[in-house]
Parts: sequence; C-alpha cells; structure tokens
Amino acid sequence: MLGKNLIRIRELNAQDITDILDQAEAFMSILDRDIKKVPTLRGKVIVNLFFEPSTRTRTSFELAGKILSADVVNISKSTSSAVKGESFKDTALTIKSLGADMIIVRDSHTGVPELLSRYGPFKVINAGDGSGEHPTQALLDMFTIRRRKGAIEGLDVSIVGDIAHSRVARSNIYALTKLGARVNLVAPPTLIPRFVESLGVNVYHRLEDIYDKTDVLYLLRIQREREKASMFPSLREYATLYGVSQKKLANFDREVLVMHPGPINRGVEISADVADSVSSLIEEQVRNGVVVRMAILFLMARKGD
Amino acid sequence: MLGKNLIRIRELNAQDITDILDQAEAFMSILDRDIKKVPTLRGKVIVNLFFEPSTRTRTSFELAGKILSADVVNISKSTSSAVKGESFKDTALTIKSLGADMIIVRDSHTGVPELLSRYGPFKVINAGDGSGEHPTQALLDMFTIRRRKGAIEGLDVSIVGDIAHSRVARSNIYALTKLGARVNLVAPPTLIPRFVESLGVNVYHRLEDIYDKTDVLYLLRIQREREKASMFPSLREYATLYGVSQKKLANFDREVLVMHPGPINRGVEISADVADSVSSLIEEQVRNGVVVRMAILFLMARKGD
Amino acid sequence: MLGKNLIRIRELNAQDITDILDQAEAFMSILDRDIKKVPTLRGKVIVNLFFEPSTRTRTSFELAGKILSADVVNISKSTSSAVKGESFKDTALTIKSLGADMIIVRDSHTGVPELLSRYGPFKVINAGDGSGEHPTQALLDMFTIRRRKGAIEGLDVSIVGDIAHSRVARSNIYALTKLGARVNLVAPPTLIPRFVESLGVNVYHRLEDIYDKTDVLYLLRIQREREKASMFPSLREYATLYGVSQKKLANFDREVLVMHPGPINRGVEISADVADSVSSLIEEQVRNGVVVRMAILFLMARKGD
Repeated sequence: MLGKNLIRIRELNAQDITDILDQAEAFMSILDRDIKKVPTLRGKVIVNLFFEPSTRTRTSFELAGKILSADVVNISKSTSSAVKGESFKDTALTIKSLGADMIIVRDSHTGVPELLSRYGPFKVINAGDGSGEHPTQALLDMFTIRRRKGAIEGLDVSIVGDIAHSRVARSNIYALTKLGARVNLVAPPTLIPRFVESLGVNVYHRLEDIYDKTDVLYLLRIQREREKASMFPSLREYATLYGVSQKKLANFDREVLVMHPGPINRGVEISADVADSVSSLIEEQVRNGVVVRMAILFLMARKGD
Repeated sequence: MLGKNLIRIRELNAQDITDILDQAEAFMSILDRDIKKVPTLRGKVIVNLFFEPSTRTRTSFELAGKILSADVVNISKSTSSAVKGESFKDTALTIKSLGADMIIVRDSHTGVPELLSRYGPFKVINAGDGSGEHPTQALLDMFTIRRRKGAIEGLDVSIVGDIAHSRVARSNIYALTKLGARVNLVAPPTLIPRFVESLGVNVYHRLEDIYDKTDVLYLLRIQREREKASMFPSLREYATLYGVSQKKLANFDREVLVMHPGPINRGVEISADVADSVSSLIEEQVRNGVVVRMAILFLMARKGD
Repeated sequence: MLGKNLIRIRELNAQDITDILDQAEAFMSILDRDIKKVPTLRGKVIVNLFFEPSTRTRTSFELAGKILSADVVNISKSTSSAVKGESFKDTALTIKSLGADMIIVRDSHTGVPELLSRYGPFKVINAGDGSGEHPTQALLDMFTIRRRKGAIEGLDVSIVGDIAHSRVARSNIYALTKLGARVNLVAPPTLIPRFVESLGVNVYHRLEDIYDKTDVLYLLRIQREREKASMFPSLREYATLYGVSQKKLANFDREVLVMHPGPINRGVEISADVADSVSSLIEEQVRNGVVVRMAILFLMARKGD
C-alpha cells in the first residue's frame, strides 16, 4: 500500500500503482477547465528541495501543488544554508520545524530521500536520487502508456541506453514488471548493471535484437560525462549503434511508441525526426507529469492524517 | 489588432496601443485599494522564463500576475535544464506540455520570443530579446507620458544614448511614431543604427541640437561593455557630451520631463540631481509598469479563448 | 512603541516586545489547524530581498507571509539588477515603485535596512544586517524562552561564542536586558566587543565561570572565517574550551536549556549529543520563528494605515 512517503517503486505493489493512475485519470478533467484550480490542499505547505538543477520535475511539482492550492516554497542548493556547511540532518530538521507538510527532494546522492524521511512527520517524495530511483517519472510513464495502450500487462517494453546509471530505468523496470509488461534492456555491456536479469528482464546488446519484440521503445538520455569515463567509444558511435531514427524505426515489426524522460539529446539517442514524429510520446509524458503528481500529492496528503 | 502574442510594437497599430493604455487606466484603481487582488486570472498558469538577469521586469510581471490571481512560476537560466544542454526547442515544448497559458520571456538573443511562439498554444510576451524589442517597456512609457501630458500626439520626444543596441529605443520609436509624436535621436554616430531615418525620426549628434525641440527626454542606459568595444572614447567623455545634468536641463526651452528605463548609471547618462528631481518620471515608469502589465495579461488571456 | 519599521531591538521597549510575543501566542492555534491559512494580509505585497544566502530566515518569512495570504516575491542577489551595477538607492526606489507594502531585507552590510527605510512608504523588517542586528531572531528567541520558562524576567541567560561579530548576540542582549534577564557573555577576549559591559551584561572568558549562573545557554555559530583571521588558535581548541557537550552540561548547577540560532556546527560550538538532546530548543526556535514572524507582519501591516 502507498505509504507515508514515496521513495521507491520497488516498495509498491501493482494495486498501489493502479490506484495512483486511477486518481490521476480522475484529475484529468481539472486541467481542461478554464480555471485550473481546486482547493484540495489549501493551507498545506509543500517544500521543493532541489539540490540538482531541474526544469521539468521542479516546475511540474510546483504547478501540481499550486493547482491544488497548496503553498509551495522552493529551496535550491545555491540559496540554501548548504553553502554555509550546514549538515544534511540539520537542514532536514530545519525544514521540518518550519512546518513543511510534504518535501519533494532531488539530490545527486542515492538514499537522500530515505534519509530525509527519518526526520519526518513531514512526508517525502523522491524526485530523483543519484542512481537510485525516480518513482514519479515511472508513474507518469505508466500513466502515459496505459492511456495509449489501454493496459500495461502483456506489452513488450524495450529500454535503450545507460541502464547502469539511470534512476529512471530502475524505477521503470520495477513499475513495468509489477504491472505485467515484458521488459527488454538494450545497451553496450558497460552500461548494463550486473545481476539485472534477477529483476525479470531480458538483456540485449544490439538494437536489432528487439526489432521483433517491442511495443514501446523507452530511450534514455546519454550522459556526456560517461563518454569521458570511456564507457563507450564516442557519442557518434553510440548514436550509430543505439540512436533511434525513423529509418531504424521502420525495421521494427510493430508500430512502436517512443518515450524519453527528457531532456533529450537530439542526434544522439534520438533523431530529431523521431522526437518530432507522431510516434513520440515525449510531450505527453511531460503533460501527464502534472496530473500524476497532483494525484500523488493528493493521495499522500490524506495518509496518516 | 493585439494578437495572440505580444512580441513587437512594430506589429501593433495606434488603436491596439490605445486599447492597452485604456485598460491599464481602468486597472489603476485596483492598486489604490487596501486589498490589491482581483480574481481575473485565477487558475491561469504564467511562466516567467528569464534567461537574463532582471529585477524590475521579472518582478513587475510576477506582481501583475499575482494581483490578477494567476499562478506564476519563475524559471531562470541557472536552475533550468539549459545547464544540461537541452535545446531551446525542447525547453519550449516542455513548458508547453507543463500547461503554461502564458510565457513571459527574456533572452539575450534577438528573435527568441518569436521562435518560442511557434511552439504554442501558449501565448508569448516578449520581455526583451537581444537588440530586438522590449514592447512592454514602450507601453508603460506611453502610459506614463499620456498620464502626464494628456496625449502623445504632437509631442517632441528625444531619445539620447546607445540607440544602436537598445531594444527599448526600438520599441519606443515604433510606439511614439505610431501615436503621432515627433522623435529625435541623439547619439554619437557609432551608436546610431544605419537607415534609422526610414522610421520617420530625426537624427542628431549633439545634445544642444534638441534644446529647442524636446518635451520628453528619454535617456538610455549606457552599457559599460560598449566602452570596451571602443564605440565611444570613455564613460567620462560620454557623460560630458551626452550626460544630462540640471545645468544642461536649464538650456532647454521648455520644461522637460526626463525618463529612463533603468537601471540607471548615476553620473553617466543621468546626473544624480536630475534622477532625484521632480522632472524625473523614473519611479512613475516602474509604478506604471505593474498596471500596464496587468492590462496586457488581462487582454491577452481573453484572446483566442 | 513598535514603529513603522522593525530594524533594531535597541529601539523597542519591553512592552513592544511583549505585545509581539502575545500576538504570536494568539497565532499559535493557526499552525495547529488542518488548513494553515488566514486571509489577514490578502492583497498585500511582501518582498523578500536577500543579499546573503539563507534557508531558515527567508523561508520562515515566506511561509509566514503565505499563511497570512500575502503575495510574497523573492529577490536574491544573483538574479537582481545588482549584477548590472545598479546602486542600492535605485534598487530601493524600484522596489518601492513596484508597490511593495513590506520589504524583508538581509545584507552583509550593517545599516542597510535603515538606509532602505528612508525610501519608504513601504515598511522595512531587518532580517539581519552585517554585524548590526537580527531583531526577528531575538524575538523568536524571547518567545521560545517565555514559552518554556513562563517569563524572561529574573532568568540567567549565558551567551557563548563570537559575540563581537554576532548580530544575533547584539539583538538578544538588548531583548534580554529589556525584559529583565541577567545576561552573561562568555568568549575569548578577542571575540568580546569593547565596552560591552555598558549594556549591563557580565563578561567571562571561561565556560566554568557560568556553571552556577545559567538557566539558558545560548550558543553562537562560530564562523570558520574567524579562524583564518587568527581570532582563536583553532576550531579544535575553540571546541575544547567553549564547545558544549553533555559532559560539560553536567557541570552546571541547574537544568540548562540550550539554544542556537542555526545553522549549527556539530562538534564545534555544540556537540551532536547536546544538539539532539531534550535540553535543546533549536527545533522549537525554528518552529516559533514562523509564528513570531506572522505576528510581526500582522502588527506592522496595521501601522500607519
């Protein structure tokens, strides 16, 4: 059952996930209204605690909170007491004492949301922790696939890219397998984490291996830093082998939907013609992010009250 | 007619401008109330997308939006995904998908608001683009002059300073000439754009040339960077030749009103005694900026609904 | 009497301070409600003008304003026109003209809030100026002590640390002596300001000197920059001589309450076991900060209307 915090998809079951998606579906009509505002979370304090830069996730949560009439306060690294060397524990205790009802946290270190949650009574939502998880991304992805395909169960979903360092991949693998999809991972061996097969996924190293087993193609952002770390020969070679263009899409035996968590590298993992095509769900993912986050804030605000 | 976007004064006609000024006049009473808040834009999402630093314009729009009860979200360069190398197009698509109704954009590159507007359905307001235009500045300037002088038509307005690089000058030249003012430009030849006479303005190179033809003296901020580029010998010489002091004001044959878009360089283009005198409309310009931007947001929110 | 601005505790009398604490007490029940929101300051514009980084004070004011339904706008150094070299006076005039009802200001230069207040009609609250004062910190400290001890009068309060450079110490010395507490200062001679005894406080140089005269122990953050300036031999020696641990607390002849304005340096001026103990009021100070600032905003908004 969805608990007090939302830190990892790993801890949810299929019903928890479905409950969130159903709630998001119920909220969809709010966004179509002329006045996008409901009083649901009036008088609640939400703190956006972002220690890594982010446009889409931070703004998505800020809007979700404001549409629900919550008071949203942004704290980013550059303006915070972290620059004075305050310990993480003391930052957490301070935000608690300031009266935050919910904290949305992003940090480059895995485990920070979990650590933060120990200082509650506030509720914690993980907005991405190091190479840990990014559960709200996976939930909006499930919502996006379900809206397009009717259901997740039985689908073939292929995730391509730097699986080893991707919190998005991790959360999506958990969500997809829990909901009954078959998951394929495609990447050079250096970008596949060890023992990943134990999660019930199939591992491939060439794009052509999944031409006959893909309904949804989920492309991951390739971090330019990995090139320097010699995890693949060059961005150009990566693009040639794993980048997806319309020409390569034509090789798939079904009509494939293309997803990406953003921000995209045009011409690297995804060609411009694919990003801008009708096959791409990238904009839909962003749009659904707001309503899915509204659902999460709403369901969690009721927990433990 | 005022269209879906507000990108250039050049595209407006005199009636469009007058409609905005009239609406601003109607809103003036809101700012005198004890409770400066009306529900006009409740449930609308306004994104302040500022890729250049700004106090007055960003805050002015933020307040205008909040007084009208809109939800205002700030995105600045330092916290955005631009630091991850996301393309402008993808930033635009992301903000669209997040559900922005209106985007206020400032960028150091000319043409960015136009480019952004292609990704609508959101509406775009140009808050300054490179050496392009700064239409809301010109509109608040027209409002300020009209309040003081009753009308723009028939006035002699002299703009002094770095015309060549000033988006404020450009927008004001369009607005003033459309509304029937006579416009004089005064600057060293290096700071006058070529072919500017085709806009129906008079060009002078010495301050004394306009002593007998000025009701309103509009001073432009001199960018210290231009000194390095050798566009004038030195700030000191610029101040001597083009800087306006009370002593020089006494040489004009009428009582001159002094305007400046800010931030001012005291002692360079404007002396402290002029900036702080009753001739100066600088504070009035800032004050009127809020109500003019309220009018713009209000009128545009109704367009295409 | 509490005037139009709140710049220095020095200018308040005991009744002013008591009025603020009583108002804060009356507001306490709002924070216990499910919906923490009252319409008291609806339509008022509060500008948070922070030229030094701050989590707790900036967020505390932002929340206090939002709970009272004010519109709160944040302006920090990095995004402001200060980067363009605008003078302080012109920044002040701009914010005035934008329509701010109240400005909360923090700056590294002593006297900035006073200077700012000359450009009113807005009201100014000092959120910390250089080595001047930090009046809202002292007020929340008085509130915290009064809640725990019933009254301030007759208490023995010992302030330990860098008194010479601490605006928190200065404001607390004024507040405590005005309310009838006996104040002891403890620090190495280099960190005690000259002539401080004229404020009616006792000065000591060793922690053991106050073992028999302390109800409340107020520890100050030691600035690591002072070490470089050779004001004490080393952080380690400072911690040994003036740092407070549970072991040292046992030497006091009464049960001592420990306070700190934050952010704390664990292991320097305060040991982790003390910071996390029941003797510590640190979290309570932060919590009370919101309600005390609500009281200040509320009382000042009524002044001069």
